[in-house]
Amino acid sequence: MAADDFEAMWRDLVPVGRSASSGGYFRQPWGAAEVELRTWFAEQCAARGLTVETDGIGNQVAWWGDGDQGVLTGSHLDSVLDGGAYDGPLGVVSALAALDTLRARGVVADRPIGIGVFVEEEGSRFGRACLGSRLVTGATTWDDARGLRDRDGVFLADAVAASGLDPSRGLLDLERVGTFVELHVEQGRDLVDRGVAVGLASEIWPHGRWRFDFAGQANHAGTTRMEDRHDPMLTFAMTALAANKQARLSGQRATFGRVQVEPNGTNAVPSLVTAWLDARASSDDELAALVDQVERQGTDRAGRDGTSLVVTPESVSGSVAFAPDLAARLAGLGDWPVVPTQAGHDAGILSDAGIPTAMVFVRNPTGVSHSPDEHAETADCLAGVEALADVLAELTGPAQP
Amino acid sequence: MAADDFEAMWRDLVPVGRSASSGGYFRQPWGAAEVELRTWFAEQCAARGLTVETDGIGNQVAWWGDGDQGVLTGSHLDSVLDGGAYDGPLGVVSALAALDTLRARGVVADRPIGIGVFVEEEGSRFGRACLGSRLVTGATTWDDARGLRDRDGVFLADAVAASGLDPSRGLLDLERVGTFVELHVEQGRDLVDRGVAVGLASEIWPHGRWRFDFAGQANHAGTTRMEDRHDPMLTFAMTALAANKQARLSGQRATFGRVQVEPNGTNAVPSLVTAWLDARASSDDELAALVDQVERQGTDRAGRDGTSLVVTPESVSGSVAFAPDLAARLAGLGDWPVVPTQAGHDAGILSDAGIPTAMVFVRNPTGVSHSPDEHAETADCLAGVEALADVLAELTGPAQP
Repeated sequence: MAADDFEAMWRDLVPVGRSASSGGYFRQPWGAAEVELRTWFAEQCAARGLTVETDGIGNQVAWWGDGDQGVLTGSHLDSVLDGGAYDGPLGVVSALAALDTLRARGVVADRPIGIGVFVEEEGSRFGRACLGSRLVTGATTWDDARGLRDRDGVFLADAVAASGLDPSRGLLDLERVGTFVELHVEQGRDLVDRGVAVGLASEIWPHGRWRFDFAGQANHAGTTRMEDRHDPMLTFAMTALAANKQARLSGQRATFGRVQVEPNGTNAVPSLVTAWLDARASSDDELAALVDQVERQGTDRAGRDGTSLVVTPESVSGSVAFAPDLAARLAGLGDWPVVPTQAGHDAGILSDAGIPTAMVFVRNPTGVSHSPDEHAETADCLAGVEALADVLAELTGPAQP
Repeated sequence: MAADDFEAMWRDLVPVGRSASSGGYFRQPWGAAEVELRTWFAEQCAARGLTVETDGIGNQVAWWGDGDQGVLTGSHLDSVLDGGAYDGPLGVVSALAALDTLRARGVVADRPIGIGVFVEEEGSRFGRACLGSRLVTGATTWDDARGLRDRDGVFLADAVAASGLDPSRGLLDLERVGTFVELHVEQGRDLVDRGVAVGLASEIWPHGRWRFDFAGQANHAGTTRMEDRHDPMLTFAMTALAANKQARLSGQRATFGRVQVEPNGTNAVPSLVTAWLDARASSDDELAALVDQVERQGTDRAGRDGTSLVVTPESVSGSVAFAPDLAARLAGLGDWPVVPTQAGHDAGILSDAGIPTAMVFVRNPTGVSHSPDEHAETADCLAGVEALADVLAELTGPAQP
């Protein structure tokens, strides 16, 4: 039974990388939890008689059936820091369960079905979202990526090698992939508001992360007169408030969720505050305008504080419109709504690479994501598995033109 | 020659715990650099025929001469994170050099002179400023302190033990101390403005550190609508700006120099922002009013952000007026000005414990402190050594009543 399969797999994953204090997940790529998940995935494939291929950086795929113009489905297993259980793993577990469902239905696919896992989707360790799929599609080159460092100063190349992989063995070949389908928990409340368990994606908002370096002068917090200071914390604080206000007024999104302070001592005015802006907007132009506006307000304030601001884009993704004919055709299978998302996904990277791509969303009762509180009801997850099986049957069936 | 002695000792200290990139010092207590400094101090004492006593937590003292009503001088060797070379070590090196000067002058002291070093003066590791002198005077008890944790979660008791010390061996006995004199680099520009190399302290402003825990709800930075967020970064940002404005308007000091964010991921609205307020004012009442005002403004904003704020005092020191007769008498030795300071010192703790205490300040050309840019000219440092020798001769001479 697909339901039993699903729940058994879900139970396997619950403890991996889970914080006992927060209940959230720490599944950073190439760390112990992620290596365990990679092994788990290989075992699940083996149990289904499939052979998993793991590429030189940890992307994985297992194919059912031969031939080309295959349909790849899957998602990612890494999490943000202290993230939820569903963001990523739901798509992988659902892919395996949908395969079980198709086999239980006796479906004979005319095209191969692949189940895949991409590494470092969240960019939580090396700051480059969708790094695995970017490398596979060539959106980012290995020479460009290998020198990325994590918060501890570890190079990407060293982290990959330390987890038992060898990048010189090459990357996944997407030659066989005719279509990509990613199932994902919804990270907003569109489906809740519509009262449906499943939907399809129309587009991904353009989005990105920018590093804001606010530099000032370290000094004694007690003896330095307020008027003699060059305190970058103030410049950051004003910029964070300005970003929020700007996004609120324009219906976009802007967040400073990560901050790093030097020297970060209680009794010292900081010398440097580095903060990362996550910004998203409904069009590329609006996104550029939003970030420009935040930078301009920060620079103005830096002038008044006697500090400086340098803004560096770290990872910027343009808008992604998923193949509209494909979404319309699949929506007809279940009368599913077609909705936009503000979250980046590997599906966006594959779509940008010219692969016809669709996304299936599963309802999230609170909309909360990137948090231990992220949730989806089991009934909705099982509806997602059925929907994904329907989509795979449609895309691999003999009716295909 | 005292000048050669001073410069030789200074050269010894330059490389210990120094960051190659910033040029600043990381001499956190009970870490490798601080252990090296402790050994260095014992060697310096031994070279002068003095026996150093190290207590169970690392406070050190070496006495020249016997008897009671001794005069203790010295300072500390730890630093803030990425601090300067002078804050602390100048007082220790000057104490040793002043002893050399007195001996070269052929002074025969009627009372013993002690040279001391107190541990964790900055509170940069365990958050409690002047921890060594607080424990020695009983202002803080070991049972109260042993459970303090550093940023890595290490307990104070474990850190002390790991550095080769045994707290059960007891603490320095201040029974012999009749007077305490601490020489320190000035951390403001009072002496620069007056055009003098040396001054004495009149008082220490009341000051302290308060932990501000701003709690919200972690969520996805892209998909969560701005109006659905409970983002504690905004509450913190507004509070930091309010604290600055309040201190500026009232002529006091308020600084948020240390911040810690959970989960601190670029694409997650934070669940928790913890920030430490360092506040100082010219009276105890004004300090309480300043902190109350900042807390009130933060709480108001938390109400609007749907977040919460809890404020916890971590280390609060009332105003310290150094013995005015003593300062007046010593000021006459060199026509030195008597000026206030906004910085906490072990001298304040000993004064609070009822020990007549004086401080000698050495000019700081920029006023910058708690920074790699902290500086004092060698000529001024040597003037400080002469002044300290004069003070010690006065306090231990036969003319004493």
